Parts: sequence; C-alpha cells; structure tokens
Amino acid sequence: MNDINFAILGTGGIGRRALEVSVAKDELMPIAACDRHGIAVDHGGLDVDELLAATEGNIASDGGTAIESSGDGIKEHGDDKGVVTSRQAVSTETPIEDIIAEHEAIDAVLIALPNLEHDFIPNIAERFADAGYEGVLVDVLKRSRVIGMLDEREEQLEESGITFVCGAGATPGLLTGAAALASQSFVEIEEIEIWWGVGLKSGYEDNRGTVREDIAHLPDYDIESARDLSDEDIEEIVDAHDGVIKFNDMEHADDVLLERAGICDTEDVTVGGILDLRNDQKPTTTTVKVTGRTFDGDVGTNTFELDDDTSMEANVNGPALGYLKAAVRRNRTDDYGVYGPAELMPGF
Amino acid sequence: MNDINFAILGTGGIGRRALEVSVAKDELMPIAACDRHGIAVDHGGLDVDELLAATEGNIASDGGTAIESSGDGIKEHGDDKGVVTSRQAVSTETPIEDIIAEHEAIDAVLIALPNLEHDFIPNIAERFADAGYEGVLVDVLKRSRVIGMLDEREEQLEESGITFVCGAGATPGLLTGAAALASQSFVEIEEIEIWWGVGLKSGYEDNRGTVREDIAHLPDYDIESARDLSDEDIEEIVDAHDGVIKFNDMEHADDVLLERAGICDTEDVTVGGILDLRNDQKPTTTTVKVTGRTFDGDVGTNTFELDDDTSMEANVNGPALGYLKAAVRRNRTDDYGVYGPAELMPGF
Repeated sequence: MNDINFAILGTGGIGRRALEVSVAKDELMPIAACDRHGIAVDHGGLDVDELLAATEGNIASDGGTAIESSGDGIKEHGDDKGVVTSRQAVSTETPIEDIIAEHEAIDAVLIALPNLEHDFIPNIAERFADAGYEGVLVDVLKRSRVIGMLDEREEQLEESGITFVCGAGATPGLLTGAAALASQSFVEIEEIEIWWGVGLKSGYEDNRGTVREDIAHLPDYDIESARDLSDEDIEEIVDAHDGVIKFNDMEHADDVLLERAGICDTEDVTVGGILDLRNDQKPTTTTVKVTGRTFDGDVGTNTFELDDDTSMEANVNGPALGYLKAAVRRNRTDDYGVYGPAELMPGF
Repeated sequence: MNDINFAILGTGGIGRRALEVSVAKDELMPIAACDRHGIAVDHGGLDVDELLAATEGNIASDGGTAIESSGDGIKEHGDDKGVVTSRQAVSTETPIEDIIAEHEAIDAVLIALPNLEHDFIPNIAERFADAGYEGVLVDVLKRSRVIGMLDEREEQLEESGITFVCGAGATPGLLTGAAALASQSFVEIEEIEIWWGVGLKSGYEDNRGTVREDIAHLPDYDIESARDLSDEDIEEIVDAHDGVIKFNDMEHADDVLLERAGICDTEDVTVGGILDLRNDQKPTTTTVKVTGRTFDGDVGTNTFELDDDTSMEANVNGPALGYLKAAVRRNRTDDYGVYGPAELMPGF
C-alpha cells in the first residue's frame, strides 16, 4: 500500500496513543495534530516523540475514549495548555479549520475528540466536505444516534469523496468486527453478547470523559444528567461503587452497526462490562459471543476473547488505525460514504 | 448491496453446500453450476432444491474441501453421473468453457473444484481473463504454492477486471481472517497458532479428497505420494490410526496469506489439527491464538474459538460466500487483483 498521510483531531488519550501506535506502522505518517488550543503541522512527518514528551501531563483529560465530556477538559501542569507545549505546534483559535486548510496533503483523519454535542462529529464531517476534502474520516464514537446523523450527511460526503468509518475503536470497532466475522459460520444469528472489562488504576482524574460517559449508562442517569454532574458528584458515585462499576444493556453503537451490516437486529445485541477505577488489571475478560444457527441446523456459539493483558488503549488505537487503513484502500478506489466496522468485514 | 449473480464450478461437497447456504442469502442468486460432466444454467436463478435432490448420492467425492484428488472422483449411484442428474442440467464435454460463455451474466464465481494439478485453479483464472470476464473469482484452496501462481497472473487478471480471493474457506479463510482481526490489539506478532478439529463420521468413502490431501501432510507423505495411494492404501492408513489422524505443522496457506497482509512472517504461523473419520463430533475445538506485543509493551494472546457444533461445511461455505460478497463490493469499485482473506480485513 502507498504511504498514508494522516491527521489527528484531538491530542488527548486517544490522539496521543494513536500517534504512538502509528510509529510502529511504516505506511502511516502523521502530518498534523491539534487540540482546541493549538495545531502542529509538518508535511514531512511530525516528530511524535517530541510531541508526546511535550504534552505529557498536559493532555486533554478524556482518558482515551471520551465521547461525551464537559468543561474545558485540559490539564494545565505546565505554562502552556495542551499541544502548544510542543515546539512543533502553534497556538490557534481555529484548530479544526487549520487542519481542514491542509486537506489536500491529508489522506485520512482520525477524529479523537470528545463528542461534546451529539452533532459535533457529524458537523466536523460536514465541514471537511464543504472544503472539498477527498479522503478518509474515522471516529471512535460509541453512541448509536450519531450514526443516523452521519447518514443524513452521506450524500454530501460522497460528493466530496469522503469515506467515513464510524465506531472504529474497541467497542464498537474491534469487537463489532469480531462479531461480524464470528457470524460467518451461521445463516441466522440468535444473539450477540459483547462483554468488556477495563481497568484504569489512574481513576477518574485521568479518565474523566470515559468515566462520565459510562456513568450516563447507569440506570439512574442519561447523557444530559451525566454531563451536569460535577467532578465531586462523579467521585462520590465512584466511591459508592468502591471504584468498580458494572454496566448492563448499554446503548452502544455495536447494535446499530451490526444491523447496518445485515447481520442481526439491534435487539439481538447486548453490550455490558465492568470498569475498575482502582486497578489496571481488567476486572473481567473482554469477550464476544455470537450464537447462531448453521445452514445444517445446528446451534452454536463462536467466541472471541481478548487477553486481559491487552489494555483498552491497545484495543482502541490498533483497530482505529487498522480501519483507517482499510478505509484508505476503499477511498482510493472511489468507494465513498458512511461505513461501520462490520460493513468492512466479509458480507453476511 | 445489489443482487449478485454467481456461478459454482464443481457440485461436490463444497459446491452443493455453498448452494444450500446461498439460499439463506437474499442478495445471492446462483445462476450456473457445473461439474466435469455437465452444466446447469438459468439466468433467472437455479432451483437449488431440485439440483441438490437430484445430485444426492451422485456428488463428486471431494468431501467438501478436496484440493488434491485423483481418479474420476464421481460416485455413480444413479444412471447418470453428477450434475446431469438434475433436470436443469445438460451433459457437456466442456463445462468450464460453457460457464465462461455465460460470463457477462455472472458477477462472481466460486471455484469449488479439487486442484487436480497445482496450476489447475490458476489456469482456470487465466481462461476467465482470456474471455474478458469482469467479476469475482473465489477459491477455497489450502496449499501455499498456488498463491504464487495466481500472483504471476495478477496483471492479466487486473486487465480483465477480475478480483480473485484465494483461500476463502475455513482455514485458510475464516480462521485467517480471525487471526488478522485478533492481531489488531498488537503492534508486533510473535506467534499465530491455528488448530482445527474436524469430525466426519462418513469416513474416507465420503470424504476422499479431504482425507487424501490431509494424508499428504503426514510426516511420511507428500502431495505426489499421497496422490499415488490406492483407496485400499488410504483405508489402511486410516485404520492404522484408528480413524483419528493428528496433524502438526501443516503446509497450509494461512502462513503465506498472513505474511501477504503484512501481519507476520510465515514461520510465525503454525497450523495443525485432528481429523476424526469415525465420529461427527469434533475431536478437538477449532481455535486461533494470536500472541503479540501491544504498543504499551505487554504481551498477550487473543483467542477465537468455533463452537464444536459448527460443522466444517458451515465454516467453509459461510465464509466462502462472505468473502465472495466482500470481493464483489471491491470489484464494483474497479478494485482488481489477487487478495487473501487477511487483506480484506482492517490493515495491520
């Protein structure tokens, strides 16, 4: 495959880790990165080590998977905020516009920003399309409803020449793809169970976005009420659970993404998991179980299991860049539009 | 996706089962099928039930996965041989030419023929290209060296407009794809272990091609010597193993196909398994284990496991048609050439 010049919107948890993973990938060259205060651009390739070292302790506190977040969300340990602490970066009031201005040099963009409003990421896609961007956009969103908003913009994305892959992290993302592949033994799917374990010893302070978003999945909360919680409220909730929060029947986009691919109905998919904020060790093993009926009439359950020693960050960012590469290949054959991870798998 | 008109070369184990699986897939319409004595064509869609009922007991004895085979290989329980027992079929001396003559109506072809010579399937691809076929070819081969022969013909295939997916059955195929996906947690792969279990109570008589090919993987045999064995020789070998044959370090194309996708070196891949010819129950659970190092320095093993109740036939034919659908999507965006299953996954 030819080289891929990519940009990252957001240098928080995901953005920084994706840059780190990309160093191991010869074909991927990061040429631009931004957060809400600054932008770093180098068409010859960013110096990832310098950028990571400079922003250490200055990252946006989205914990790597923040989708819903509130407040400024930038830690200020140094004199400067966020990415501008890097000598490669400059301060700007318009970071996303500044990245869009580079679009002719960019093959793919990883959107690693918290989805501050439901239509935040869809609107970013629209702005890229307005500018005539021809390339890939990838996000790692979790919420089902964002996908519908992207679909509404599909015609505009296609006209511009954009291939958008939504939900390309761990779950949805890696686990959605695994469910799609595990379905291949069957002609009819009865049930898909996705069960994740995440251990984040660094706790709420370092994983604000993730924790806040996950709390929105608890029975007594929703996105709006979780967004209104103060940091103290969240610390209290975490303490009340002794740092270990269990989730059942989450509104995770896996269901919509599997239905889009024609594999099953949304109601056949259940997503749950356990988040431990006091240990890095996973509190439970991340597993995908696909139960279906084979053409010859047997019912069975195929299983995909991640090693407990693979971190959330590894399982988000490897797949995000993996789907990005798959999308670039499609984009280069003029295959545009909005796709979920399961649609990039063998057809069901 | 638009409807896909497909043809099947070979109405043995794989061909018949693939037709059966395709009935469950709305977008797939089988319009042509052949074996070495006859051809059935109906542009409005073959009557699969009739074709299967007519050929029951008259199938080529490749057991569903035969690649290397010898002799005539057609069972003659009725007056006629093979597919011509169907009222939809006619006898012909030139079945493959007759399918090729229909190429303008065909979007995809599943090659479910035993690879009688190493270059048999590559030569079929060449003949489709010579005729100007624009569409998909899929095979379920197992042997590594065939892939090189396809690569030699890649330019010709691209010029014609052919997207060829090789090794798209169970292993290689489903398990290769699973290994590729399980690799996404890692930046470096240490080892990929593919271990399969197959139970075929119907024994050698009904699974000649599979058994003969598998024997070629035993320490004292190779393809040529296995091809020269008489049926009696093979029955003796099976009896000497009490019907349960264990294989280690097989020359399976998984290694080459994973290396092609840039995931690991061929020597990092081991394939083995157990074939039980006296029980339908699998003698061991089919498992893929991918051991790698994450970007953050941990070493872990991700696992994909097929339920023991999913038959070899379900795990060959679902993926074969799944990869076929994925290839049609590529073909329709003018993405031509030779691909393995792992190359159709997220990029590594």
